[in-house]
Amino acid sequence: MKPTELNRLSASQAAVKLQQREISAEQLVRSCLDRIEEREPAVQAWTQVAADSALAQARMLDSGPVRGLLHGLPIGVKDLFDTDGIATSYGSPIYANHVPDSDAAAVALAREAGAIVLGKTVTTEFATFHAGKTHNPHRPGHTPGGSSSGSAAAVADFMVPLAFGTQTAASVIRPAAFCGVVGYKPTYGSIVRAGVKSLSETLDTIGAFGRSVPDVALFVAALTGDKRLADTGNVDGLRIGLCRTHEWPLADPDTQAAFDLARRRLTAAGAVVTEIDLPAHLSTMVQVQTEVMAFDAARSLAHERVRHPAMLSSDLAALLASGMSISVEQHQRNLAGAALGRQLIDSVFDSCDVLFAPSAVGTAPEGILATGNPVFSRMWTLLGVPCVHLPFMTGAHGLPVGMQAVGRIGGDRGLLQAAHWMMEKLSG
Amino acid sequence: MKPTELNRLSASQAAVKLQQREISAEQLVRSCLDRIEEREPAVQAWTQVAADSALAQARMLDSGPVRGLLHGLPIGVKDLFDTDGIATSYGSPIYANHVPDSDAAAVALAREAGAIVLGKTVTTEFATFHAGKTHNPHRPGHTPGGSSSGSAAAVADFMVPLAFGTQTAASVIRPAAFCGVVGYKPTYGSIVRAGVKSLSETLDTIGAFGRSVPDVALFVAALTGDKRLADTGNVDGLRIGLCRTHEWPLADPDTQAAFDLARRRLTAAGAVVTEIDLPAHLSTMVQVQTEVMAFDAARSLAHERVRHPAMLSSDLAALLASGMSISVEQHQRNLAGAALGRQLIDSVFDSCDVLFAPSAVGTAPEGILATGNPVFSRMWTLLGVPCVHLPFMTGAHGLPVGMQAVGRIGGDRGLLQAAHWMMEKLSG
Repeated sequence: MKPTELNRLSASQAAVKLQQREISAEQLVRSCLDRIEEREPAVQAWTQVAADSALAQARMLDSGPVRGLLHGLPIGVKDLFDTDGIATSYGSPIYANHVPDSDAAAVALAREAGAIVLGKTVTTEFATFHAGKTHNPHRPGHTPGGSSSGSAAAVADFMVPLAFGTQTAASVIRPAAFCGVVGYKPTYGSIVRAGVKSLSETLDTIGAFGRSVPDVALFVAALTGDKRLADTGNVDGLRIGLCRTHEWPLADPDTQAAFDLARRRLTAAGAVVTEIDLPAHLSTMVQVQTEVMAFDAARSLAHERVRHPAMLSSDLAALLASGMSISVEQHQRNLAGAALGRQLIDSVFDSCDVLFAPSAVGTAPEGILATGNPVFSRMWTLLGVPCVHLPFMTGAHGLPVGMQAVGRIGGDRGLLQAAHWMMEKLSG
Repeated sequence: MKPTELNRLSASQAAVKLQQREISAEQLVRSCLDRIEEREPAVQAWTQVAADSALAQARMLDSGPVRGLLHGLPIGVKDLFDTDGIATSYGSPIYANHVPDSDAAAVALAREAGAIVLGKTVTTEFATFHAGKTHNPHRPGHTPGGSSSGSAAAVADFMVPLAFGTQTAASVIRPAAFCGVVGYKPTYGSIVRAGVKSLSETLDTIGAFGRSVPDVALFVAALTGDKRLADTGNVDGLRIGLCRTHEWPLADPDTQAAFDLARRRLTAAGAVVTEIDLPAHLSTMVQVQTEVMAFDAARSLAHERVRHPAMLSSDLAALLASGMSISVEQHQRNLAGAALGRQLIDSVFDSCDVLFAPSAVGTAPEGILATGNPVFSRMWTLLGVPCVHLPFMTGAHGLPVGMQAVGRIGGDRGLLQAAHWMMEKLSG
């Protein structure tokens, strides 16, 4: 591989070469920077590229011992995470001049494992629905999805092998789907959130983008300290529950086709594939998630709502107003409904090892002012279950289509193994 | 009441007078500032008193409409909460020059309800065990408890009627006990934590200090938007479970005497008082909480641990090192143990309305370098149940002694009503 193409290495491939000193971190960073220079005018994935500090960090790592699982790997950090000395705006003009004096805990853990912060990636406004400047790298003029827009686009476009995202409604899985990369939302609570701008304590979950299942597994293994996650070795006799979900009527022909293709290929590969109908109560989860998110956001963003109302988008102002209109009693009913949902989904996994469900309505819609419908992820986020988006098809306009593998709470290791196996069979 | 004594009004009393314009917010703030000027040299409760901005805010509120439940009430804010334009150091030299550009969400919600930020109160280092400069207002040279040291001392010393605290182990209940004020730790998750320096996402709970149960109920009603909490009207036929807990052998004679006094007075007042033995599994909760806190802290404070190791106290460095030595598997076992504990404690409440348990080993120990043993609150924090400390006795050195009323998850309204009734009977 030519040094100019190092940016195309997957994180797992690069990690091995870096640890064996076959390539240097500086070479890898330079290759990523070259790609950014070439492609950023079209993609607009970054709010800031920290080229100088990334190169300095790379040289330091190259001249010292191997630091950890992420030694020498450049990462993109969603601009919702505080970064020490690097401007962090949370996608809002309120924080246009904000420069934190510390790293978010997850960023510090990534650095501790040897990762290099290449820069900050575009987020929607406070990770809600008002979009940033990013285009879908596969087709300018189409959305990359949100809220982790820049992270998904940068990974898809080979600007960086790994990037941080967060999901409160669909903000990891949907941009992964629209950009055709692997997105992994671990079990709720797996990765520490300190120093990430909070939208909903009930829902916010840090996740990862990569170009393969082992890549996101490696990243999250390093962040959680659970090195077992990095072992995505094969599985036998997988029981896969194809799950249309109660939102199936919203799935467009591309998503329907992905569902059928998945059934055929996974069955042919030897998995036990059945269709799973979810309990009726779970049909309420989309509405419950929508209300919990609004209720929480109105409180988490209280400072911005009260002190800077004129600097909020009308989208966000409406979301916060809807949150303020939800009573505490209603919120408590919603939390009780979510708790029941968590019990019900857990028993669904008695009859299968993994669920496989739509990630999005269809391919990335045209236009970059909206980030697409989050409906197919709201339930899973509310339930706190781990999800991995797998891209395995193309649909309208040649844009990517895929589905998400869903595991039980705490079952991340089994889910990643299943997802790795499924991805290999689906790509065949 | 002379204007110079307005600082002695309870929050509930002051709130009525402010809303009826019997007193002005400016008068109340000035009275509190006078008290601080007189007493701060001995007590050392504050890291910063924001006199000018508090007076300006008071005048603005006096000349406008009533804003909310906390209209015109000065509050103390633990220096673990971000405050817009007011230095915030989290009790650490790492952040000696840190001035946030936004308020923590809970502070913004308090301001929205009409509260006035009088200043920042002393916290231990990142709300852990390395103490600040504060003395017990009842006896200089004795600890006020921690980590919400300044908040408890300032409220006890009539410097401010209400103050914010946080509890991860015992940091609301213990300083309330040592300083002889009411401390209220609501059900886990009740008050939004955005903008408060995170120690443990599993445990951190925002709480309140006041000089009466209705005071802390009013404060938390405003912060949560659950106005039902402010109604602490009387209850009938209360079933009180006196609960020594598995840690009882650590209770000293003062705490034992409080337990006996509580039994006599509450029985005499007509409550159904029984002794409750906790399930054996709950004897493990202190150890589980200790390990969960260390595990989480090592991750939440990853930036400080990695980038500023020389600026951590040796106490904190040891805590973080112990957290790094706990495996993910062990942590998952701990979380499972806590989940079982939550089920078990819930069924304990089938036989009583409220538990009444020790708050601390005894009175505030001598010396201000240590903040006392947190052992009697670790379990309740881990379980997420709401707790209210009630001061009703004096013990060694004339220092305060009391006990904590404990409710079931989400049962805050019933707990506050019970606590209000109990406090009246115990004070008789």
